[in-house]
Amino acid sequence: MNHTLQALGRRLRLGVVGGGPGSFIGPVHRSAARLDDHYEVVAAALSRDPATGRRAALELGIQPERAYGSWTDLLAGEADRADGIDVLAIMTANAAHHPIAKAALAQGLDVICDKPLTTRLEDAQDLVRAAEAAERVFCVTYNYSGYPMVRQARAMVQAGELGPIRQLQVEYIQGHLATPTPADREPGLDWRFQPAECGPSLVLGDIGTHAHHLACFIADQPLAAVAAELGSAVPGRQVDDLAHVLLRFEGGARGSLWVTNSAAGAEHGLAIRVFGEQGGLEWHQEQPNQLLHRRLGDCPRLLGRGGPGLTPAAERATRIVLGHPEGYQEAFANLYLDVAAAIVARRTGRPADPLALDFPTVADGARGIAFVEACVASARANGGWTSCRLEL
Amino acid sequence: MNHTLQALGRRLRLGVVGGGPGSFIGPVHRSAARLDDHYEVVAAALSRDPATGRRAALELGIQPERAYGSWTDLLAGEADRADGIDVLAIMTANAAHHPIAKAALAQGLDVICDKPLTTRLEDAQDLVRAAEAAERVFCVTYNYSGYPMVRQARAMVQAGELGPIRQLQVEYIQGHLATPTPADREPGLDWRFQPAECGPSLVLGDIGTHAHHLACFIADQPLAAVAAELGSAVPGRQVDDLAHVLLRFEGGARGSLWVTNSAAGAEHGLAIRVFGEQGGLEWHQEQPNQLLHRRLGDCPRLLGRGGPGLTPAAERATRIVLGHPEGYQEAFANLYLDVAAAIVARRTGRPADPLALDFPTVADGARGIAFVEACVASARANGGWTSCRLEL
Amino acid sequence: MNHTLQALGRRLRLGVVGGGPGSFIGPVHRSAARLDDHYEVVAAALSRDPATGRRAALELGIQPERAYGSWTDLLAGEADRADGIDVLAIMTANAAHHPIAKAALAQGLDVICDKPLTTRLEDAQDLVRAAEAAERVFCVTYNYSGYPMVRQARAMVQAGELGPIRQLQVEYIQGHLATPTPADREPGLDWRFQPAECGPSLVLGDIGTHAHHLACFIADQPLAAVAAELGSAVPGRQVDDLAHVLLRFEGGARGSLWVTNSAAGAEHGLAIRVFGEQGGLEWHQEQPNQLLHRRLGDCPRLLGRGGPGLTPAAERATRIVLGHPEGYQEAFANLYLDVAAAIVARRTGRPADPLALDFPTVADGARGIAFVEACVASARANGGWTSCRLEL
Amino acid sequence: MNHTLQALGRRLRLGVVGGGPGSFIGPVHRSAARLDDHYEVVAAALSRDPATGRRAALELGIQPERAYGSWTDLLAGEADRADGIDVLAIMTANAAHHPIAKAALAQGLDVICDKPLTTRLEDAQDLVRAAEAAERVFCVTYNYSGYPMVRQARAMVQAGELGPIRQLQVEYIQGHLATPTPADREPGLDWRFQPAECGPSLVLGDIGTHAHHLACFIADQPLAAVAAELGSAVPGRQVDDLAHVLLRFEGGARGSLWVTNSAAGAEHGLAIRVFGEQGGLEWHQEQPNQLLHRRLGDCPRLLGRGGPGLTPAAERATRIVLGHPEGYQEAFANLYLDVAAAIVARRTGRPADPLALDFPTVADGARGIAFVEACVASARANGGWTSCRLEL
Repeated sequence: MNHTLQALGRRLRLGVVGGGPGSFIGPVHRSAARLDDHYEVVAAALSRDPATGRRAALELGIQPERAYGSWTDLLAGEADRADGIDVLAIMTANAAHHPIAKAALAQGLDVICDKPLTTRLEDAQDLVRAAEAAERVFCVTYNYSGYPMVRQARAMVQAGELGPIRQLQVEYIQGHLATPTPADREPGLDWRFQPAECGPSLVLGDIGTHAHHLACFIADQPLAAVAAELGSAVPGRQVDDLAHVLLRFEGGARGSLWVTNSAAGAEHGLAIRVFGEQGGLEWHQEQPNQLLHRRLGDCPRLLGRGGPGLTPAAERATRIVLGHPEGYQEAFANLYLDVAAAIVARRTGRPADPLALDFPTVADGARGIAFVEACVASARANGGWTSCRLEL
Repeated sequence: MNHTLQALGRRLRLGVVGGGPGSFIGPVHRSAARLDDHYEVVAAALSRDPATGRRAALELGIQPERAYGSWTDLLAGEADRADGIDVLAIMTANAAHHPIAKAALAQGLDVICDKPLTTRLEDAQDLVRAAEAAERVFCVTYNYSGYPMVRQARAMVQAGELGPIRQLQVEYIQGHLATPTPADREPGLDWRFQPAECGPSLVLGDIGTHAHHLACFIADQPLAAVAAELGSAVPGRQVDDLAHVLLRFEGGARGSLWVTNSAAGAEHGLAIRVFGEQGGLEWHQEQPNQLLHRRLGDCPRLLGRGGPGLTPAAERATRIVLGHPEGYQEAFANLYLDVAAAIVARRTGRPADPLALDFPTVADGARGIAFVEACVASARANGGWTSCRLEL
Repeated sequence: MNHTLQALGRRLRLGVVGGGPGSFIGPVHRSAARLDDHYEVVAAALSRDPATGRRAALELGIQPERAYGSWTDLLAGEADRADGIDVLAIMTANAAHHPIAKAALAQGLDVICDKPLTTRLEDAQDLVRAAEAAERVFCVTYNYSGYPMVRQARAMVQAGELGPIRQLQVEYIQGHLATPTPADREPGLDWRFQPAECGPSLVLGDIGTHAHHLACFIADQPLAAVAAELGSAVPGRQVDDLAHVLLRFEGGARGSLWVTNSAAGAEHGLAIRVFGEQGGLEWHQEQPNQLLHRRLGDCPRLLGRGGPGLTPAAERATRIVLGHPEGYQEAFANLYLDVAAAIVARRTGRPADPLALDFPTVADGARGIAFVEACVASARANGGWTSCRLEL
Repeated sequence: MNHTLQALGRRLRLGVVGGGPGSFIGPVHRSAARLDDHYEVVAAALSRDPATGRRAALELGIQPERAYGSWTDLLAGEADRADGIDVLAIMTANAAHHPIAKAALAQGLDVICDKPLTTRLEDAQDLVRAAEAAERVFCVTYNYSGYPMVRQARAMVQAGELGPIRQLQVEYIQGHLATPTPADREPGLDWRFQPAECGPSLVLGDIGTHAHHLACFIADQPLAAVAAELGSAVPGRQVDDLAHVLLRFEGGARGSLWVTNSAAGAEHGLAIRVFGEQGGLEWHQEQPNQLLHRRLGDCPRLLGRGGPGLTPAAERATRIVLGHPEGYQEAFANLYLDVAAAIVARRTGRPADPLALDFPTVADGARGIAFVEACVASARANGGWTSCRLEL
């Protein structure tokens, strides 16, 4: 049953900013919105270039008057409509997240924003305050937290099945920047190579924040401090493409993080292992439907999405039966599904399923920026321990 | 770019029959139609029970006048509308496929039909002739052929990279019927336990046809003969839930097939291995983004969806970059994507991308029924070799 | 503690026949004998060619007077010595197993014989009778039954942990004969290509007997009947290099077997899966230290050699702690270890550890030959069911 | 062919110190010596307790006069014999390695010593000088370097197949100390819990040195500096059982190391990944016969021990054909095999196969101690970078 249709009598109206031609993440957001039929994409400002953006919007079937040339036009245009958008999804270059999200909140919209939340911690904290003041839903698309078996892992940790978490390792090993690119010599060609657009660290903003969130989400404790080594595997590159980081968590766990975009020949190897007093968990995004559960004094067991022994948190995030793989797109869509439930709950005044409210928020986004800034500071100071605690 | 929107100025209008409350495959079809935005589900007859079907349709957001109580009502109602459906998707009990599909073709609709095509070979052959006469698209949802790495495997075989195929093994190992069910004693509770509704063999119709199609699709040769053992792992069960079959292919390959619904504790292990003179391929649906390529005189290589070394057939079926897993739903949606391309081509008179036209057809569906009937005949005759050749 | 040294005050004296220059299995037997220090190889007739055999024996450190030119010389020479051999290990061409083993038994020696036991069923039955009459230990080196996790699997089946076994699949997929060899044109170059030396089926004698024994050993029930397809993947080859076989077991299990030497690019993929009413087991020789245990209504667990939850049968066959892999050589040596225990028990009149007495015997060897002959008969008779029952 | 027997006309005479009742590593050394038949264990001092040691030696079949009560007795006794030992293998508590090895060298013996070499860097450096002065073979049993696929990895790096190494990660994840032990409260019960016997760090000495050596061996460059976090996962434990370490190598590679004995439910997960400009390698001890080779711009390939595409270094370390797994014991034995070749070369004055001379030496042992001491210093100094360069 489609709860949004039932409760509101219609789908949520979604506007999107960014994600036009050449974007990887744009189609992902739009498919995620469409998959479960809770949203209708009705307005778009897809590109910095107005003509490009409008043309692309038309090709997606957006009505001409809602195919905007800029995000400011979009917000203004939609504000004037009786059937204006309910939610704004932001997938622009990092530096634009803050002004767009702030304006959307000011206009009373709910917000879905890609990560990293901002390029500066103070902007992130500003958005935390703004979202709180506006009383709107604000989801940051740390999409890996949408995987059923990641939610299973978190639920098991929260239920104490592993005992106190003592150690963990998280990694995200990509290869797509393993060779020199034109932007290495001419950063203007790619916003990710320009600190002003991307933030202080390419690799940490791009995938380090994902790994950081995944670790905190599963271990169910914030990160307290880091000791970091940043660098580049490509000679002459001005931005960093690899990071090795030691981790100390608030709850006492210790660990390490390895992220890189420059591992020649690698796929997109996001993986995590956590160990507590009673056992450990291991999850790999490349085989996301399985979770290995090691147990003290017993043999490991292999939990499968849709199979026996799962928590309600995992079951809620599952669409298809055991053995039929779900993937990246379904996990991404789970965030959109949860956000819809949260918005419907606010609009109708009826409480949402609590399991729907565990999606990553603006505060999680801000913690990610604090993590990036602490790593950069540590690396500049001979790798010593640096706090990334954040009071929110 | 959405070619359907570009070419027709609108999405294809889809009607669905079957797939209502309690159905596994209904939501899969509808999500598949929605994922790439080429279809709009506008009419539905979701259940044998008219009231149930209409209520379910309304919950999906279907307009009340197009929430039909029966498939006959649906066909009649849509025929009368200027904006009537373009395509009918059929996901009822097996025995109903034939009359519904035949009526849809007679009305000039394109058809997407779940497998097995029919419960009797003569009905299947009748549909082959009807589809040919009607000059309409007729896709049978052997959905595993939608996986990019399955298409990669077929393309490699077709290109001769493995040399002539000499041997193969295919299997589909499920566990969901491993224990006695109420329908074992009272077949009326579940149409799959009634030969009149399901066809002569539960396990062969349900998943044997999938395995048969996958083997022929990848080996790129029809099956010539079988020697089969059918049986049940559950004492007292009247329908068979396991099959071991020896295979001889038209092109000279030999092999075996093992399918079961009653392997206690199993997931949905569809897998295939083929070997030719120059190497072999191995694919597992539970890790569908990888294809192991064994090579004569060289070490194996691991082809990854989205990665280097793939054929255009695999690339066309891929949405997301290397390392981000795609799954069952995306593969299913690839058939809908291809069908849309075929329909648009016919409607516009412009040729489709040839890569879009390799989806399973009504003829493939008929071959599946011939396979089932040959296995049943072989098993009844002491397991000797029995032809399943089909002239179409 | 070394029980042989403790009980006898010395190691067992081993003679070996066959396994000289160019042999794969010769060094395996000798290392297996040496690994646990229960045997001393003191006499050898390593080759059909007397000079070659003697030279090779000297190179292994055999005393010159015990480096024999033929097996008849060896038996005669050792019979004359006060310190003559206790045990004879036979690893010649298949056709020579019967006369050598029979003579060894007649001389009161214990026997370790490679598989297949003989080239004809009547010879195999003759050896069964001879071993019984001689009251000597007779082990046939179905070495895969020496793997700890194979013994674990058998023990779990015997304990009823899976319930009655309903279905299984076993396979042995090799690639070393995937291309034409000189012996394809001139069979005299390799005894395996000569039925008189090798037996009626190359692939069945070579590895089919291994797969057959493994299936019966784990399922704990003899094979009752087969329906077989034999053939060759290499055009023009006179002997068969692939076999697909349907299986019916005495205990009601059904299954299939696929063995081949001609799968281009394959390794040595011996693997088995069995399913009973309560669950299933899966084992792969290429990762022999793990056993996957699927459970009805529960998630799978992964048993590890040396880890928690193992049976005494598995623990007895284990030398090293969990996580440090053991392999082929250790499994092979487990048969030698068990045989030593059996011989010491007979010689000292003290009962052996019952767990040591579960090694494959001459009767198991004879069942293997009955399996081969039944497959050949079935394949010649259109693949129909053929009994391989054997009264012993 | 057994080169030692050929060259010397006899096996090497081996004495062993340590490894008596309760020892894990003692039987491993002795089996390793026996496996390829180059050694005969003729003298032993197996325990600190003279009576225990002598009794255990007799049970192994050692002659009574060579079943010694102490290592000093052993060295003295063997010095007096015409047939005295050639080689001494040391597997005592860590603190005893230095005096025993030094005395053995002084007596002209070749030495095989378990790791870590010593408990203090100055002792290690003293042994480096002593071995050099004595001109004797001195192998430290970093046994993982004996795995064929580890040697393959090193050879590929040395040949430049990966280009310059840019990043790596190595880990050794054990679970056997995941719960409090009696020695946690009473360190006297286990020498590993006493820094004076074990060295400054339990986990670094026990397995950190293995991981360190493996990384340097494969990356083919010494470690330059570390930034380390040490700790314990078991509350109240006085010695550390986990370490996360950032790594900078002499050749420019960066990386991280994670070792622990206290990961609840873990096996013995030693694994390494290295990435260079042209690709990466991945190896797991639990599946040691495979090496994953990722390639820039191409799909990964899976190298298999005994299979196509291997280097002579890997082939030399291989006993059995492709697909039949080798394990820990065989890898360990490869060091004994190499040491035998080195000793025979020195004794005969004929050069050894250069591939035999790549085993870990006393200098590698000393580098391991420098690594341990640098980690301890870094951890005490807020995790900052600390040099572990060693001039030898």
